[in-house]
Amino acid sequence: MNSTRILIAGGDLRQAYLADVLCRTCAVETIGLDKIPNPPGPLPETALAALAAPDYLMLPVPAMSDDTYLNTPFSAKRIPIDEVLDCASAQTVILGGKISGTLAQKLKERNLSFIDYMEWEPLAVKNASVTAEAAVQIAMEELPVAIEGLPVLIIGYGRIGRLLLRKFSALGASCIVAARSPAARAWSEMEGAFSCDMTALIDGVERSRLIINTVPVCLLTKDILAHAREDCLLIDLASKPGGIDQAAAGAFGLHTIWALSLPGKVAPATAADILAKTIFEIDAERRNGHGTL
Amino acid sequence: MNSTRILIAGGDLRQAYLADVLCRTCAVETIGLDKIPNPPGPLPETALAALAAPDYLMLPVPAMSDDTYLNTPFSAKRIPIDEVLDCASAQTVILGGKISGTLAQKLKERNLSFIDYMEWEPLAVKNASVTAEAAVQIAMEELPVAIEGLPVLIIGYGRIGRLLLRKFSALGASCIVAARSPAARAWSEMEGAFSCDMTALIDGVERSRLIINTVPVCLLTKDILAHAREDCLLIDLASKPGGIDQAAAGAFGLHTIWALSLPGKVAPATAADILAKTIFEIDAERRNGHGTL
Amino acid sequence: MNSTRILIAGGDLRQAYLADVLCRTCAVETIGLDKIPNPPGPLPETALAALAAPDYLMLPVPAMSDDTYLNTPFSAKRIPIDEVLDCASAQTVILGGKISGTLAQKLKERNLSFIDYMEWEPLAVKNASVTAEAAVQIAMEELPVAIEGLPVLIIGYGRIGRLLLRKFSALGASCIVAARSPAARAWSEMEGAFSCDMTALIDGVERSRLIINTVPVCLLTKDILAHAREDCLLIDLASKPGGIDQAAAGAFGLHTIWALSLPGKVAPATAADILAKTIFEIDAERRNGHGTL
Amino acid sequence: MNSTRILIAGGDLRQAYLADVLCRTCAVETIGLDKIPNPPGPLPETALAALAAPDYLMLPVPAMSDDTYLNTPFSAKRIPIDEVLDCASAQTVILGGKISGTLAQKLKERNLSFIDYMEWEPLAVKNASVTAEAAVQIAMEELPVAIEGLPVLIIGYGRIGRLLLRKFSALGASCIVAARSPAARAWSEMEGAFSCDMTALIDGVERSRLIINTVPVCLLTKDILAHAREDCLLIDLASKPGGIDQAAAGAFGLHTIWALSLPGKVAPATAADILAKTIFEIDAERRNGHGTL
Repeated sequence: MNSTRILIAGGDLRQAYLADVLCRTCAVETIGLDKIPNPPGPLPETALAALAAPDYLMLPVPAMSDDTYLNTPFSAKRIPIDEVLDCASAQTVILGGKISGTLAQKLKERNLSFIDYMEWEPLAVKNASVTAEAAVQIAMEELPVAIEGLPVLIIGYGRIGRLLLRKFSALGASCIVAARSPAARAWSEMEGAFSCDMTALIDGVERSRLIINTVPVCLLTKDILAHAREDCLLIDLASKPGGIDQAAAGAFGLHTIWALSLPGKVAPATAADILAKTIFEIDAERRNGHGTL
Repeated sequence: MNSTRILIAGGDLRQAYLADVLCRTCAVETIGLDKIPNPPGPLPETALAALAAPDYLMLPVPAMSDDTYLNTPFSAKRIPIDEVLDCASAQTVILGGKISGTLAQKLKERNLSFIDYMEWEPLAVKNASVTAEAAVQIAMEELPVAIEGLPVLIIGYGRIGRLLLRKFSALGASCIVAARSPAARAWSEMEGAFSCDMTALIDGVERSRLIINTVPVCLLTKDILAHAREDCLLIDLASKPGGIDQAAAGAFGLHTIWALSLPGKVAPATAADILAKTIFEIDAERRNGHGTL
Repeated sequence: MNSTRILIAGGDLRQAYLADVLCRTCAVETIGLDKIPNPPGPLPETALAALAAPDYLMLPVPAMSDDTYLNTPFSAKRIPIDEVLDCASAQTVILGGKISGTLAQKLKERNLSFIDYMEWEPLAVKNASVTAEAAVQIAMEELPVAIEGLPVLIIGYGRIGRLLLRKFSALGASCIVAARSPAARAWSEMEGAFSCDMTALIDGVERSRLIINTVPVCLLTKDILAHAREDCLLIDLASKPGGIDQAAAGAFGLHTIWALSLPGKVAPATAADILAKTIFEIDAERRNGHGTL
Repeated sequence: MNSTRILIAGGDLRQAYLADVLCRTCAVETIGLDKIPNPPGPLPETALAALAAPDYLMLPVPAMSDDTYLNTPFSAKRIPIDEVLDCASAQTVILGGKISGTLAQKLKERNLSFIDYMEWEPLAVKNASVTAEAAVQIAMEELPVAIEGLPVLIIGYGRIGRLLLRKFSALGASCIVAARSPAARAWSEMEGAFSCDMTALIDGVERSRLIINTVPVCLLTKDILAHAREDCLLIDLASKPGGIDQAAAGAFGLHTIWALSLPGKVAPATAADILAKTIFEIDAERRNGHGTL
């Protein structure tokens, strides 16, 4: 047990498991996690007033439910974000992911320093692995057919696309990767896929029983979706605005799942482990006198 | 469309999807599938009286719900097995899996010929793949951690064990295979596992967050289970009597899932495809004058 | 160092590395290995007269170069097998692989007990892995094209076929497995191959740049070879009589390699390790009072 | 056959196979390839004077053997580079890899346009795959042990490192990846390796029987190499100055191979195919009016 003091404020199972991991080595306080289901179960609420200047303040993703309150889906309480920020001192390191403009402005006005851990590459890679695994789980649950032998179209070959190919092809799926960049296509072929560029998307769509999009641009337009098999499952992993014309998909009767924030939902303990390791890495960097992540 | 006439009697989604596949090329009649959910949806009931001497009669697994009635979980009707068998002639090929002694006796008395397709090796291999995939799905659903990095113990290295290793290690799990035969252990090592014999089972149990049993002998006794982590998930894929002392597992508070007949449950369309291909193979053999499967 | 006394007689680099491994724990004597190249280098010759009743006598594979002499490719000496066997007592365990009828007869007449380690399944599996790896090496050396993307036909899906598929497909080759048994074909598909039965061999032959045979039956006849690409490489891993009509292959100008006893040639140190482990296992069994391997 | 005219000047087997591929669709002339061994065999020499203004001029890698002559390892002739460049017109596209400062200066003075295809990412990825495969071949040839079970240290996780991990771990090696960047380490772990940062290099060096360097910085210094096993094989794939202190390695008696330009040596036909595809892509881009690669 070291003397590091951490406040974990709001959020979902991931934040609760994070408290569970960190309390083995640090002094952890929690707010807004009083209705977490088992396991790990509800966490004791700290009185905000008692919490002066923690070393770290962990915010949820997203941090706020609207422009005023902390995002607390597992609490009956409504906690104004300002009350949370009142605890922080100039020495407190605030960590969160996908910070909004509103919150960034608040932090700036208060002269508080903030790290967006979603931009810490090793964390992003590990989260991408959990996300890809979650997509496998969704496909298994939603399709009446096995992954073995399944024709799959993966759109995009960034972090998540690369890990989707790895996992689906390891399970025996036959994967096509659609990517704009010739280099990405060359990589996907070296890693076991057939590949096509975006102009050949229709071909890939026609053949596939499962289509997974990872690109935050609307590539699966009405014209393209018109070529999909009627029993095709569409999974969109791209953040807003997503890559599927949902209205068109609905009109064609295609089963579409827009799956966001998967790590915290399907593997919250792993997501918390990843986050805890990241915090320790950031902490080590700071103690070594490096100013930035 | 050929002139082959097939009667599909009772059973679950797999039988319903089988009707769906076979009706593209054969004349298919169904009974006891009137409450199948979507997809593929309820199937029309044929009057038994109208069904004289089909070429094939497909029975469910298991064929009977007790000593008298056809197994019809998706029908409100109770259909005596004798009424079903009355339809068959000496030329009818009856197919089913895991036939009971009672049914075998009935068939013998009626001079009807029967094939147990579960003993047709290619079908067994493909079913094993679907079963192993289903175990992955269960692990993903039940565990709050990812498969990537998960310590897994696989007990037995027969058909299912071999495919479990393939799938779990492809997803990044760290697998130990426990097997009695030195040859099986050598194979599992060549295919990426650590291996141990049954005398070292305790070691494997202690390290694992997930234990999957495939051996129909009670190897996970109270003494062995005493060494399991409290957050360990146990999945038993072995048919009766299973390989886990359920009472002991319960007493230790271990989460245990006894998962049987997985292909028909998690991937009924694939399970039906496998079955349809098997029927076509059997049919081809018979037309070529080969007497047996 | 224990008191076990081992005589290693004749053979190739594998026997020399075996001496190298065993001498760390046992008293090892060698004959017929005086011209072994570096590493591990020539071994000192023991006078046969000095060698009464070793615990183990390791013979090479094959044991004899003709009907009279020990097989000693790395010695200038010619050593009559009878002189070697004169060293053995009734307590000596004689180990070798692929014993000939002539030698078996000699041993029987002398009442000496013999174990053919090539029939010890775990050793056979590990040797098969080294053999499959050696086939990869040969293909890399002989072909001006990469394995990545190479169309490969693997004939047979026994131990070696299964490991050939694993290694070649892992390196990005596109593999067809030809096998007679439907179960073998089902397995090869589950493990990533396209499969065909022997009646479709011509198709597979036509498409492939590399054909590897593992079946000791002449399947690649003149009629079949007539369909091979002229730049096709043929590797025959089957023991006598092999599976390729060598005369026909020659007449068609096809590049053919008949590769036997690969483990001792390409990875002698690993082959020796495998053999040493096998001896220790056999020894453990014998000390535990089990009479047989 | 289209009307594109291509001059292939000097170089190794890759250039010869390139001529072999391109002559199916283009008008190809060659110089400096008159002593190429079979296959594909010596190529006819074109008189330079006859070659006015080809559409493409393919130079070897490196282009020059010194400051004056074309690099022609497979020709008895010495051909001044100036005579080759005299053939080119302002419309000729000159392609080559790793152009030297001297040659760049010459081209600039003559107002000739030049493309370095080694900077075309898809070509670089495919070449990296062939290079990684060649490293597997070298390891198989040089080591008396199998890749299966081999402890391997891979230094660097760029293009080649990533493909080395893929191929070696697929063959059953146990791989450690040493990389400076936390993101690279996270990726290598997701792709099956253990990873370490450069400060832990000694640990990785101590455990490994094979060390492959891909980083063009001298990381394997005398101090580090002092920890290597005496039977360790070192393969350096990094271009000048390489990453191994060769003098220190020699003093320690370590077997070191500095392997450069592998694609053209071990898989010249594949290397030529990759190059031909790149030329067609560049050509398509140019015809579409895009100015650059």
